[in-house]
This record gives sequence, C-alpha cells and structure tokens, in this order.
Amino acid sequence: MSVYEIKGGVCAPIGFKAGGIHCGIRKNKTKKDFALIVSEVKASAAGVYTSNLVKGAPVVVTKEHLADGYAQAIICNSGNANTCNSDGIEIANAMCGLVERVSGIKANDVIVASTGVIGQKLNISPMAAGIDELYAALGDNSEDANEAIMTTDTVKKSVAVQFIIGGKVCRIGAIAKGIGMVCPNMATNLIFLTSDVSITPAMLQTALSEDVKSSFNMISVDGDQSTNDTCCILANGLAGNTVIDCKNADYRIFVKALHYCTVKLSKMIAKDGEGATKLIECNVRGAKSEKMAKAVAKTVIKSSLVKAAMFGADANWGRVLCAIGYSGENIDPLKIDLDFKSKKGNLPVCRQGYGVDFSEDFAKEVLSADEVKINVNLNLGSRSAVAWGCDLTYDYVKINGDYRT
Amino acid sequence: MSVYEIKGGVCAPIGFKAGGIHCGIRKNKTKKDFALIVSEVKASAAGVYTSNLVKGAPVVVTKEHLADGYAQAIICNSGNANTCNSDGIEIANAMCGLVERVSGIKANDVIVASTGVIGQKLNISPMAAGIDELYAALGDNSEDANEAIMTTDTVKKSVAVQFIIGGKVCRIGAIAKGIGMVCPNMATNLIFLTSDVSITPAMLQTALSEDVKSSFNMISVDGDQSTNDTCCILANGLAGNTVIDCKNADYRIFVKALHYCTVKLSKMIAKDGEGATKLIECNVRGAKSEKMAKAVAKTVIKSSLVKAAMFGADANWGRVLCAIGYSGENIDPLKIDLDFKSKKGNLPVCRQGYGVDFSEDFAKEVLSADEVKINVNLNLGSRSAVAWGCDLTYDYVKINGDYRT
Repeated sequence: MSVYEIKGGVCAPIGFKAGGIHCGIRKNKTKKDFALIVSEVKASAAGVYTSNLVKGAPVVVTKEHLADGYAQAIICNSGNANTCNSDGIEIANAMCGLVERVSGIKANDVIVASTGVIGQKLNISPMAAGIDELYAALGDNSEDANEAIMTTDTVKKSVAVQFIIGGKVCRIGAIAKGIGMVCPNMATNLIFLTSDVSITPAMLQTALSEDVKSSFNMISVDGDQSTNDTCCILANGLAGNTVIDCKNADYRIFVKALHYCTVKLSKMIAKDGEGATKLIECNVRGAKSEKMAKAVAKTVIKSSLVKAAMFGADANWGRVLCAIGYSGENIDPLKIDLDFKSKKGNLPVCRQGYGVDFSEDFAKEVLSADEVKINVNLNLGSRSAVAWGCDLTYDYVKINGDYRT
Repeated sequence: MSVYEIKGGVCAPIGFKAGGIHCGIRKNKTKKDFALIVSEVKASAAGVYTSNLVKGAPVVVTKEHLADGYAQAIICNSGNANTCNSDGIEIANAMCGLVERVSGIKANDVIVASTGVIGQKLNISPMAAGIDELYAALGDNSEDANEAIMTTDTVKKSVAVQFIIGGKVCRIGAIAKGIGMVCPNMATNLIFLTSDVSITPAMLQTALSEDVKSSFNMISVDGDQSTNDTCCILANGLAGNTVIDCKNADYRIFVKALHYCTVKLSKMIAKDGEGATKLIECNVRGAKSEKMAKAVAKTVIKSSLVKAAMFGADANWGRVLCAIGYSGENIDPLKIDLDFKSKKGNLPVCRQGYGVDFSEDFAKEVLSADEVKINVNLNLGSRSAVAWGCDLTYDYVKINGDYRT
C-alpha cells in the first residue's frame, strides 16, 4: 500500500496529454496563458468549487458539464477570471466549444476554468485564434500547462505518484496554481488532477470531497476566498484495475495516494503564498473535536499578527494564544501548551497558558527556517488537525497593491 | 439636542483630572508609560471588554471592580499587556493598590488596564516607584495620559463634547489607543471615557453596550482581536442634571453625545491602523437585515486584498465583490451596485453585479485621497451599516514583523 512519487505531472497517468501556449490574453508574450489537458477516452470526473456566492462564469459552466459525472478535457486561461462579466457564461461556453472544434470532444465533456483579474471582459478572439496551436502542442507537456495557469505564482506546483491496486500499476498526476485569495473554504484558485484509475464518478466525487476537508481547505494565504476556486479530477480507467465502486480496500489505496498529492500541493501553495518567504504549519492536538482542532489551526494560520511575526522570526507567542482565544472554540487558555519547531530545533514557549523562559537567539534561529511549525496542544481531548499558511511580507503588499497594472 | 466639540479630552467633564509619566516599564525614557485618571467623587461606571477567551489579567480585575457599578479612577500602563503571566492577577491588583495608597480611593473602585507585549511578566517595581510622581502630575493633563497609553499609535486619539440636558451643561471626554489587533468584536485596545452626567450605572452600561455595536465593533485594522480590549466610562454626576434612570429624552441626548465621541474615535483608530495611509469607510445599504449589512461591511473592510488594493489606489472592485460573496450572508451578486467615493469625486464601478466603464486616471485620483468610501448597495432591503478600516501597507508588515525587539 505504498505511494511513490514519479515524474510527469498531469501526463504521468496513462492516456493524458497536456499543453500550454501564449495566445495573447496577457500582454507579456513570454508568459503562457492558455492550457489544455486531454484524456484519450472519456473519464469519470469530479469537482469541488468555491463557496463564494460571487462565482466565476467558468465555475457555473464546469458544474453543469460535470453533472453527468464524466468529462474528457480541461481548458483554462490565465490573465482574466471571466467573473462579474455580463457575457461570462457565453465566453466560458465558447471556450468549451473551441475544444470541441479541434478535438471532437463534446463541449459538455469539457471542464473550463479561468484565473486572473475580476470584472474585465474576457475576449474570446485570442483563444479562438490560438486553439489550433494549443491542440497541436498537446503531448507530455504538463509543465507547459502548469505555467499557463499561473498568475503571481513564483514556482510551478506539480506532483505525480504511482501505486498498486489489485496488481495493476496506477497513477495520479496534478498541477496547481495558488497564490493570494487562498482561503478559507477552498484551497487555491485552480487544481487539476488526472488519474488512470478505474473508479465510478460517485466514488471519485466522494474521495475528492472528503479529501479537500483536510488538504486544500486547510490552507490560508490571506483569508480571502476566490470567486473561481476549482479543483477537478479526471480518472480514465486505463490502468485496468477492477473498477472501484464502493469504499473497499482499493478505494482506501486510491484515497491515500490522492491525499499524498493534495497535501503536497497544499504545502506548495501555502509556501508560495503571495510574497511569502516561508511555510507555516500549525499542528493542533488535544482538541475535543475535529471541528475545534480545525478552527484553532485555521485561526492561527490566518492571523495577520502571527503571520507578520513569522516573517520577522519573532517568537511573539502571545499572538498565537491570542488567535486561539478568538477562534470561536471553547478552549481553556490555562491548558494550552505551545512550541515553535523547525529543522533548527524545538522551542517550547508556553506551558499551561503561561510563558516559559527561552533564549531569544535560539528562537531567532528556529524561526528563521524556511518551514516553521506552530505546535499547539489544547490538552482537552484527542482530536487533531493541521493547517498550512505563510508569513505576511512586504512583497504581499507590493504584489496586491498594484495587481491590475 | 446639539452636540458641540470642546477641548480637554478626559479632563473636559467637571471633576476629572488626568496625568501621564514615564515610570520605566519602557526602555525609551521619552515615551510616557503610566497613566492615571481620577474623578473627585465616586462615579457610575460601565465597561465592555474583549470576547477573546485569552483575557489579560487587567480585564479580569476590572470586571470584578465594576461589578457594583461604581469606580473612581483608571490606572493604565503601556509597554506590557500583563497577559498570559502566572502572576498577572496579582500584579493587576497591586496596580489598583498603588492608587489606593496615594489617593485613598479604594482599590476595588479602580479600573486597571495594560497594553503591550503578551506573555512577559510585568514588574510592579517601576510603577510602585513612580506612583507618587504620577499622582502629583494629576491635573488638566489629558494629553499626557493619552500619550502614556499609546503603543504603536502615531497620533493621540481624543475627543470631548458638550451638550445640554434639562438646562444643565454636560460633557463627555475620551482618550483612546488603537492600532493592530483591532477587530472583530471590540474596537481597540483601550478607550477611556469620562462624563459629568448624572446617570445610573445600569443605564450607563446599557448606553455603552448598545453604542459599541455600531462604533468600536465596526472597526477592523487587521482582523485580530486583542486579549486586553477595554472600553470603560465613568460618569460622576457633577453636571447636576436630573439623574438618568430610564430611556427618556435625557437618555437619548446622552446616547447621541456618546455616539458622536465613539464614532469620532472609531474613525481615528481605523485611520491610524498600523502602517495605514488612509481611512476606508464601507457603507452598506439595501440589506435585508442589520446583521447582513454589518457582516458585509465588516467582511469588505477586513479583506487583505481589498486593503492592499486601497493602498495601491487600485480600483480592483472585483475584490470587493469577492469579499461580499464570502461574507456568509445570502446576498445576490447580480443585484450589487458599487461605488468608490472620496473628496475627489464619486466613481461608479459596478451595477447589478457587472462592471461599468470608468477612467483609470479618475479612479486613481478618487482612491488616492486619505479617506475613501466603498459604497455598496445590495438592493435587497432597507437596512444599512457602516464599518471603518484602513489600507494594508508595507509599514504594517514592518511594524508587526519585529514588534517585540
């Protein structure tokens, strides 16, 4: 029941091709802005989306197209979110139509996504002109597709794994874009997963819906929640395993492999939060309930004061206690133990709600690492949760103070 | 029923003296750190406090002391919040004891507050050594007290008004400190109000509790909520009006004057948020309920992306719509009208959920003002609310990245 990382991103599973080109939505010609992922055969498909009531038009269209549980392609542009536009639905449908025109895959088997600025009209012309080039570019090109869906991301976010189900080698691959607006109920703007596992649409949706609760939903970059967050998975069955149609042992292997991918992407997204210099992981244990553990972990990760302190490598643990205190959960301040931890060592800072002495020099060393853990024990029960975030930096402000221009 | 601004801060009402000195809690000798406000006679007293479960020891002690509805003095230090310390209650009580020693005012008639770093022990010695000097410094010195309660505030926040009740001239005065950790359920760390109005403790508490819902509770600087937020009022009755003991016409005059002071301070606090360069006011109308109006206004004001856009004078109105969409309220995106407004003019950016054309140059001009209004019409009903916040700047990160050192 082991999961191994492999190369190839969304093209690692059998029967998937991907590509990405610059079609002209962005002015910068060196930045790809148009991506396509295609399966050789129609695939089981599932999705989870933003809970923001202001939804991007592509989210609405994708939900419709996945209503029957099947899809075969994913089309995506960056540079414009196609949201809050009166012609948004029309444009999103037109993007699916372009895929049908070049590939023969029916428009309603196409997942569509857009990311970028909100409230500016998305012109179909550059995509209509570029779709042939994009289709021709399809191949083992997961990285091109990854680049084409990026906005202010500074690194590509991709993972692929292989695992065995019933003697058959199976694979999951994924690409993601994160950055800004990451939180609270959906992780990042866009995550596309592919797999060659054979699984029913219903079980695929169950697996994805349950997984995101402890992966993408536990990330926060800035507390905002995008209008366009979309996480979709296609599973085309070409691995040849016996179809997974219930929560059996095969399902559990698939879920484990899926979770490996989603947690890895979650950390990559958090660490690459706009302007971030480090990954912050908040581990909460000793909670009365999973709800309590998650709420506390998320509140700590979201606190601007905690995030700014992490940027400054300042062991201002009072801010962590303060955040726990306003989490809305009925914690007992006088039971809280708190440690900061990194590869440089473990720093106990608070026991039973009160400060313990520590070396400021050692604290600075621990907190200067590029991955810092905030370990909280509420000492009230046995449930736990993990959330991921990043520090708050000058560059976050710089990036977001002038995003559109 | 008119309210006029006057000078004098907390010393404007009859019978109040104030003072502030440097006693040595802070290393910087030019920064006052110890404040005292005293009424000639015992006064009706009321308070509202942080709802954070991690509470500063002074909050616990002050609540006890106000349980009988009366108090006569306010003692406060800055530089250390006396929170998460095992001897916190003892120290807070000792501070009240110092006031009793020099003034004869009973310790349990003293309101105590502390602000500054959390989790470091507060040494009583500098205060014990300085209390005589502080008591001797009492006079018409509201500004000294104001300075002594400041932390990273860049301006003193003070207001005083006079008004007529039953032919008698009455006054309310106030000083406040804001900055950082301002939100969501209590406004700022510390607000001290004085009045010479004659009013029962019960009516004073009712007036204060109802007032903060549309004043200090509608401010957000960074979404964090302090452990030490305290807003207290003393009303000593020396104006000689007929005692206010029910919600009569006199009460309504008092409430109006109180609200004038609290809204003025709320705006001052929001505008002086850590690193802020401008005041953001979000006016929401057309809501189905007051709850909806407040939730939408607060969510917009708290959005890091909106705040960063305001800093950059970037008319990225999609972020406002996005924030409205995740407010948790059942709004209809396709009914939202949105305008940005300042002294430079009014800029309609969205009608019925879709963008309208506007000049980027004019937008930059409107948003470059030092006070910007985000005016939202939900077009669902008749209720409204106002919330105040500030932009998110490089300096916020700088201040909070290295607060303790």
